Amino acid sequence: MPNPAYVAVDWGTSSFRLWLIGADGSVLAERRSGEGMTTAAKTGFSEVLAGHLAAISAPAELPVIVCGMAGARQGWVEAGYIDVPASLSSILSGAVSVPGESRDVRILPGLAQRDAAAPDVMRGEETQLLGALGSASKGMQSVCMPGTHSKWVHVSDGKVIGFSTFMTGELFDAITKHTILTHAVAGAEDQPADAAAFEAAVATAFKQPALASNLIFTARSGQLLHGISAAAAQAKLSGTLIGLEIAGALQNAGKDAAITLVASGRLQTLYERAFHTLSLAFNAIDADAAVRGGLSAAAQAIWPN
Amino acid sequence: MPNPAYVAVDWGTSSFRLWLIGADGSVLAERRSGEGMTTAAKTGFSEVLAGHLAAISAPAELPVIVCGMAGARQGWVEAGYIDVPASLSSILSGAVSVPGESRDVRILPGLAQRDAAAPDVMRGEETQLLGALGSASKGMQSVCMPGTHSKWVHVSDGKVIGFSTFMTGELFDAITKHTILTHAVAGAEDQPADAAAFEAAVATAFKQPALASNLIFTARSGQLLHGISAAAAQAKLSGTLIGLEIAGALQNAGKDAAITLVASGRLQTLYERAFHTLSLAFNAIDADAAVRGGLSAAAQAIWPN
Repeated sequence: MPNPAYVAVDWGTSSFRLWLIGADGSVLAERRSGEGMTTAAKTGFSEVLAGHLAAISAPAELPVIVCGMAGARQGWVEAGYIDVPASLSSILSGAVSVPGESRDVRILPGLAQRDAAAPDVMRGEETQLLGALGSASKGMQSVCMPGTHSKWVHVSDGKVIGFSTFMTGELFDAITKHTILTHAVAGAEDQPADAAAFEAAVATAFKQPALASNLIFTARSGQLLHGISAAAAQAKLSGTLIGLEIAGALQNAGKDAAITLVASGRLQTLYERAFHTLSLAFNAIDADAAVRGGLSAAAQAIWPN
Repeated sequence: MPNPAYVAVDWGTSSFRLWLIGADGSVLAERRSGEGMTTAAKTGFSEVLAGHLAAISAPAELPVIVCGMAGARQGWVEAGYIDVPASLSSILSGAVSVPGESRDVRILPGLAQRDAAAPDVMRGEETQLLGALGSASKGMQSVCMPGTHSKWVHVSDGKVIGFSTFMTGELFDAITKHTILTHAVAGAEDQPADAAAFEAAVATAFKQPALASNLIFTARSGQLLHGISAAAAQAKLSGTLIGLEIAGALQNAGKDAAITLVASGRLQTLYERAFHTLSLAFNAIDADAAVRGGLSAAAQAIWPN
C-alpha cells in the first residue's frame, strides 16, 4: 500500500465526505457522514474532522485540504470568494489556513459573480469543476452540476466567465412536501419510475418554459381527471423542473458550448435521460471523482512533492 | 330593509363566506370564517352552515346557493364538473341539491378541461367568472383570477374555451417557508414593500421565463453579495412568480384578448402593478363582488321570482 500523502474533504451543507489519498493518488480510505456544516457548526468543525481522522488512523502530520461550506461565513473559517471571470487555477491560490490546528488544514475559496442583475455564488462546485475540466481546458464549455442548487458554469479556455444557480432540487423537495402535489406523488417511491412521463415533461418545459408553474399543476389535475400514477406525477414534476433548468442554462450558454455533466447516481441517470430527450450531446463525469480530482490538484499545488 | 331572498355561500378549501341577499340584490348580512372544506369535512358541512344561518337569523325556508370546494368529491355533496368548452350559463344548470336538508340547498358544479396534455380543474372560480363577465359577454377575453392556484380563463363570446392553473401563490408560500429563501425573506413583513424590485422581477421573468428558478435564487445570492433587504428579496420572488405566470398565460391566450383581472386586496395591488409594468391593458373587477354576482345569477336562474 502506498504511503498516505494528504486527506481530501468535501464538506457540504448537510454532508461530510473524506478520503485518505496515497502518494500515487489512489484512495486508501473513505468516510461519509451527515455531519455537514449545519451539524458541525453545533458540534465543532475541529472535533468532527478529528473524529474521522482518528477513525482512519491518519498520521499526525498529514495535511488536509477542504472544499465546500466549511469555508462559508457561517462555517469553520471563512475562505471568501474568488470573483469571476477567473481562471480555474485561481482557486488553488485562494486557500485559507485553519488556525489552531496541530496539522496543516486548508480550506478552498468559493466563486462569486458580483453582477448586479445576476448575483451568484458557489462553494464546493468550483473544486468539482477544476477536477472535471483540469486547469487548462480549451474552448467553450458549459458544465452542469445538478443537485439541491444545480450549477451551470460557462468556461472559456480554462476561465470561468459566468455561472447560474437553479433551485431545481430544492424546489422539487419543497413542492413534493409542502404543496397540493404531496397527495399526487404519495407512494411514488413504491412504483417503478415513469420514464415516458419524465421525458414528455422535459420536452414540454424546455419548449414552453413560461408554462412551468402550470405544467407542475397538471401532475395534480392529471391525477384527478385521468388517474395518472404517483410515479407519473413525480416524473412530471421532476421533468418539468429539469427541462426548465436546461432551457434557462442554454439560454445563458450559447448554442455552441460543449456540455459536460458532473453527477452521480440517480441525478446522473435523470440528467442523462433529459439530455438524450432534447438531443443534446454531452460528456459525463462522475461527481465524486471530479471533487477528488479538484482537491488533488489543490493539494499538489499547495504541497508539491 | 328589503326582505331576504336567498343566502349565497362561497365555500373554499380553507375559507367560508356567506351573504344574506335581499330581494333587491343588496347584501343584508355577511359572515366570514376559516371553516373551509378541510375543517368542515371534520366538523360537518350541515352543522357549519346551520351555525352561520342561525347567527344571521335566516328564515327557515330561505334557499341557499353554494359554490366552491363544498362540491368536491371530498366535500359535502359532489357537484361534478362541466366540461369545457362550455357556455358560462351552463354552470347554472348543473347545480346539485343537498339531500336531507330542511331548506333548499344547491351546490354549483366546477369546470374541467379533460385535454390529455393540459388537464385542469376549477371550483368556485367558474362562479366568479360568471359574475365578472355575465353570461352574454362578447369577444375574446382572458380572465385572470390570482390566488393560491391562479386561474386564467379564455372566453370567446360567452363560452369558456380553455383555462390554465398556475401554482403561483402556493409556490410563493412553499418557497418562503421551506427553502433557503426563508432566511432571505425573514423580516420582510416589517419593512415597506419594494415596488421597484417587484417590477424589475416581473419584467425579467416575463422576458426570460426559462430563467425562473435561477431568478428566484438571486433573492438569496443578492442578499449575500449585495445586501438587498428582506423586502427586496420577497418582492423578487413574488415578481418572478407573477411574471412567469403572465408570460405563460398570454402564450395560451393570444395577444388580442382583453384582460380582466378579478381580484381584491393585496393580490389586486400586485397584479395591477405587474400589468402596468408590462404595459398590458386590463379591466379590474372586485373578486367578492364577482362571486356574489355569479351566485346571484345562479339563484335567479334556479329560483326565479
